[in-house]
Amino acid sequence: MSWYAWGDPDRAAPLDPNVRALIAQTLGAELRDLPPVPEDAVRLPDPALPAAARADLVDAVGGDSGRVRDDRAARLRHGAGKSTPDLLRMRAGRDVRAPDAVVLPAAHEEVEAVLAACSRHRVAVVPFGGGTSVVGGVDPLRGPFAAVVALDLREMDRLVRLDAESGTAVLQAGLRTPEAEELLAAHGYTLGHLPQSYEYATIGGYAATRSSGQASSGYGRFDSMVLALKAATPRGTLEAGRAPASAAGPDLRQLLLGSEGVFGVITEVTVRVRPLPSAHRDEAWAFPSFTEGAAALRALARSPLRPTTARLSDETETFVNAALSGKEAAPGCLAVVGFDGEEDDVEARRAACARVLSGAGGTPLGSEPVADWRGSRFHAPYLRDTLLSAGVLAETLETAATWADLLPLYRAVSGAVSQALKGPEGDAVVLCHISHTYPEGASLYFTVVTAAGEDPSARWERAKRAAGNAIAEGGGTISHHHAVGTDHLPWMEAEIGPLGAEVLRAVKERLDPEGVLNPGKLIPPPPQRA
Amino acid sequence: MSWYAWGDPDRAAPLDPNVRALIAQTLGAELRDLPPVPEDAVRLPDPALPAAARADLVDAVGGDSGRVRDDRAARLRHGAGKSTPDLLRMRAGRDVRAPDAVVLPAAHEEVEAVLAACSRHRVAVVPFGGGTSVVGGVDPLRGPFAAVVALDLREMDRLVRLDAESGTAVLQAGLRTPEAEELLAAHGYTLGHLPQSYEYATIGGYAATRSSGQASSGYGRFDSMVLALKAATPRGTLEAGRAPASAAGPDLRQLLLGSEGVFGVITEVTVRVRPLPSAHRDEAWAFPSFTEGAAALRALARSPLRPTTARLSDETETFVNAALSGKEAAPGCLAVVGFDGEEDDVEARRAACARVLSGAGGTPLGSEPVADWRGSRFHAPYLRDTLLSAGVLAETLETAATWADLLPLYRAVSGAVSQALKGPEGDAVVLCHISHTYPEGASLYFTVVTAAGEDPSARWERAKRAAGNAIAEGGGTISHHHAVGTDHLPWMEAEIGPLGAEVLRAVKERLDPEGVLNPGKLIPPPPQRA
Repeated sequence: MSWYAWGDPDRAAPLDPNVRALIAQTLGAELRDLPPVPEDAVRLPDPALPAAARADLVDAVGGDSGRVRDDRAARLRHGAGKSTPDLLRMRAGRDVRAPDAVVLPAAHEEVEAVLAACSRHRVAVVPFGGGTSVVGGVDPLRGPFAAVVALDLREMDRLVRLDAESGTAVLQAGLRTPEAEELLAAHGYTLGHLPQSYEYATIGGYAATRSSGQASSGYGRFDSMVLALKAATPRGTLEAGRAPASAAGPDLRQLLLGSEGVFGVITEVTVRVRPLPSAHRDEAWAFPSFTEGAAALRALARSPLRPTTARLSDETETFVNAALSGKEAAPGCLAVVGFDGEEDDVEARRAACARVLSGAGGTPLGSEPVADWRGSRFHAPYLRDTLLSAGVLAETLETAATWADLLPLYRAVSGAVSQALKGPEGDAVVLCHISHTYPEGASLYFTVVTAAGEDPSARWERAKRAAGNAIAEGGGTISHHHAVGTDHLPWMEAEIGPLGAEVLRAVKERLDPEGVLNPGKLIPPPPQRA
Repeated sequence: MSWYAWGDPDRAAPLDPNVRALIAQTLGAELRDLPPVPEDAVRLPDPALPAAARADLVDAVGGDSGRVRDDRAARLRHGAGKSTPDLLRMRAGRDVRAPDAVVLPAAHEEVEAVLAACSRHRVAVVPFGGGTSVVGGVDPLRGPFAAVVALDLREMDRLVRLDAESGTAVLQAGLRTPEAEELLAAHGYTLGHLPQSYEYATIGGYAATRSSGQASSGYGRFDSMVLALKAATPRGTLEAGRAPASAAGPDLRQLLLGSEGVFGVITEVTVRVRPLPSAHRDEAWAFPSFTEGAAALRALARSPLRPTTARLSDETETFVNAALSGKEAAPGCLAVVGFDGEEDDVEARRAACARVLSGAGGTPLGSEPVADWRGSRFHAPYLRDTLLSAGVLAETLETAATWADLLPLYRAVSGAVSQALKGPEGDAVVLCHISHTYPEGASLYFTVVTAAGEDPSARWERAKRAAGNAIAEGGGTISHHHAVGTDHLPWMEAEIGPLGAEVLRAVKERLDPEGVLNPGKLIPPPPQRA
């Protein structure tokens, strides 16, 4: 993974000058290139890990000093996630943060030993999977401590156990999705988790952030696939989840899911697996408007036969996507439904869903408009880099709400972001789609395109603040699948209430008494005493 | 609800003498009647609520002294749940516990005021819904306090809000299910939650204990229907759940679900509702063995079209049920599948499930064998009272496990219980069914029938201990839908681990610093210091 961009920067083709001119015209803005500085021009803070702490960390990973790295390349590559503010900082080579060292444990017990050593030496620990956070989740913040290490889980990449009878697999946290799918496919199974970060993100990261993928209508959110978790904490091991369902008290899995490394480090996840599908089929549908398309997705979410994938672009996104692929956009909104499974089952579900969608006012467009969708579905982050190099911010934000709140929230967030970005530096284009549906509501995924302007970070910050406030006021959740990190922390107390925040702090204090785990993330700080 | 039996004791018909003789012969035991003592012969401890506390409690419920009751009838009726040990204690009229008063708040704010008053006066509080706990969950234990009150939620019985667009309803915690269904049916909706305790249990109780009903295959467990919760705690209000799905940190709903009143009192629950079905159909199927039947239910749990209800009796339960209804039992095991929905949908699902069940070796028996099932499905607790009066214990216990663990666990629990009850007082008959299935596993629900013997409580305690140990050793959960209470507490630390127990204590201490809420339930006590 590149230090300043998504994945392999060579896959981010330069922007066609004609397209660039069209974008500049649409945004009413001058565009100014934002190339990255050379890697050796990036200024990093000097490493500050005390020698005694370093020696204990080497001990913790079995005496292998190669697994406690403080070289510049390793530190730089653990210095940020992949939000637009992260990429802007890296490209500029200024204000770049970096951990003082990168620790690479290879076993649960080593993770425990690392956490014990960091607690003893009062060194902050930032768990690091694929490094794909877009909310500041892997920022190497020191908090009140003298040093910070990134705890990179890449060495923990095994399929521990497959239980074909029960349909479950135990996966180590550091497994990336393509490798996890390869290990499962060898036994005829799949996880079916396909977020945009698929090629880089890890199993542990998915659990720690409650990730959700493009096939969530069929396979479920990642958190709904988790049967059990094992985590290392400074106080020892916490295992949660014993049976497929239980009434033995509160569900402690649900405290670890979404805990973003503040309570402990998830080292193993027991997930539901499904037989590899032998057939798949995608179909495009047109709806006269976003309102009618949303009503159709609502009907689909409540029908007994559901698609594997269901998404609906609003009018603007439909128009822009068609323009980007050189096609003429149909008026209205485009929906995509996808079906994975056995041949018969795919056809039965397709036919049942087609009846629902037709009944809701949809027009079938067949497979052709989405023929290349599966091939390109992880490409969006590269497009963001392409645009960023050309001086265009193209960042995303997301929420979820009940069906009753959804369209008012859609209008409020679009309006707030557009308003916040209006001005002498040009306008914004705000695109939106629904890509995760539930019987009671759905997610909204916005893409905001605007000229980078003089101070791109401040510009994005302004849009993000406007969006977050609109979400909080409109009854949405501050995140449907991106998590909290640092970027959503300002709204976290509104989301869970002051007593909810106290509960998180109580759990934190019990499991991580020194507070070394991922300081500054997720948990609202206690109120200041007068 | 009767003080010594389930519901209305007149509905528990006396045991036919011929059946009784047959049971005695089967169990190889003498049977001795166990009639209840007259109500005024029950000895209750003297009420011990300090006058100052009482005055503050009256204030807390708006100055209405009629809502702080310490009359004998009210105290007796809040003295126990409905486990066999509870019923035995009540029938004998000895060792009966009772709260010192019963408090009846009518609003969330009144519950908060009650908890504040109890914290101030150091009076234990036992939240009380329908009083149907079978695990000691409503036992009026004083813990280290001078007095204990039952907090009865019956006055809080409103449908607060119905959101037809989103398919959700906000229900107050004290609503009993028939009344909740009536309120929802007026708008065309149903909850679809049908546990054996349906006629008496409350919405708040379902949430606090993670109840699961007979239609769980179609409607889901109660915890899966909950979108949001509001709870009163000694530290104030905790609300959890904002959107249909969220990645904004740990899911705090899942801390309140199953919390059994130890963190706070759930006062409102936002639940998913579904359109009232216009059609239903039940079908019986025969399988050559429990093993083959279980494999069929597993296949059904993984198929895209699921029944609303799916249950499978083992050979013994199949035989006994047929004998009880005067029919000839088919050899092997009986399964029941039920379908609720619209006519077309019911037929499509029925046909699809029939293909799965046939393919798994089942023989369709049509609707006739289960024609009276819906009419009598809440009757089992009355049969237990009928048998108890005749000197026969007929108690249930349950667990859940993955498919890989399920049948070994079934054999281990049946064997352990049979062994524990073998002896001069006769044998036991152990029946079992599967009634809740998941893609990864299922529940096991055992009914143990044995002569009451000389010391019925000790006899049941022996069986329960053997079962609990077999469950813990066999990878099952100590409860799939009965909760923990006092009766499962000995196995709770094995279930969640010592660090899991510490997490529960940390949350408890933060929300209920005086520890007045439901002492002695759910949470393993901290290790004794040397």
